[in-house]
Amino acid sequence: MATAIQDTYPDDFAHCYGCGRLNEQGHRVRTFPSGSGSVTEHVPGPSYRGASDFAYGGLIASLIDCHSAGSAAIFWMNANGRTVGVELAPRFVTARLEVDYIIPTPLQPLRLLGVAEEIGDRKVIVTTELFASDQVTARGRAVLVRIAAP
Amino acid sequence: MATAIQDTYPDDFAHCYGCGRLNEQGHRVRTFPSGSGSVTEHVPGPSYRGASDFAYGGLIASLIDCHSAGSAAIFWMNANGRTVGVELAPRFVTARLEVDYIIPTPLQPLRLLGVAEEIGDRKVIVTTELFASDQVTARGRAVLVRIAAP
Repeated sequence: MATAIQDTYPDDFAHCYGCGRLNEQGHRVRTFPSGSGSVTEHVPGPSYRGASDFAYGGLIASLIDCHSAGSAAIFWMNANGRTVGVELAPRFVTARLEVDYIIPTPLQPLRLLGVAEEIGDRKVIVTTELFASDQVTARGRAVLVRIAAP
Repeated sequence: MATAIQDTYPDDFAHCYGCGRLNEQGHRVRTFPSGSGSVTEHVPGPSYRGASDFAYGGLIASLIDCHSAGSAAIFWMNANGRTVGVELAPRFVTARLEVDYIIPTPLQPLRLLGVAEEIGDRKVIVTTELFASDQVTARGRAVLVRIAAP
């Protein structure tokens, strides 16, 4: 079974509501390398609705945030010749998050595809497209800063 | 007791995880007029942590999102001579959300202060400062679009 970047975070970094594998209430976002990019799949629970039967904006922002932090670690590792699941992951936190809500996102299985816009030693910028079925419903851009290196 | 803008949303708009009074799992954000601005106070539960004992980025984005949607309704009503709690609220959805995470936000009672950057008939832009104690830990800017008028 493939290793998500979040599976490799040390325990003290694994309680995040968005992506912590040790947070039993949270979303437990899991992000994988995919070609030169990254992918996260998520099935939102029924309480995470906003208006009508659409996903609420905060869920979409949360998914993009944690997917971007995981993607930044993946992209940094790729750029530095390290392998997810073999070497320890660096830890990134979000400095800035931008979300464009294009059309309402249905409460159904969602897919986030991430691409690196910039990969620096301390700063990584990730752009994301959020898909419901084959439709892009939101776009994200996040600036991440590395706070600790393996 | 003061009326929050979310108290006046019709039931079909009151199930949002972020601010729906009828969503038992959610944050139940409540936003009030405050001078020419708006205010939301929120006490995050212990599961909404990110790294260490700080609030996770998705919670901060969620609070800013729902606070901004409520603030847009308040600002629009003020600009159109209507009173929160007396007349029906217009409904706004988020088109774009920007969050700058300035310093880590502790998991403690939080306060969001909103200001109108622009108030149009269909579009309102809200800027927000998020405070923990007296410290600004994050800033937000949201573009909201009115989807239904009373």
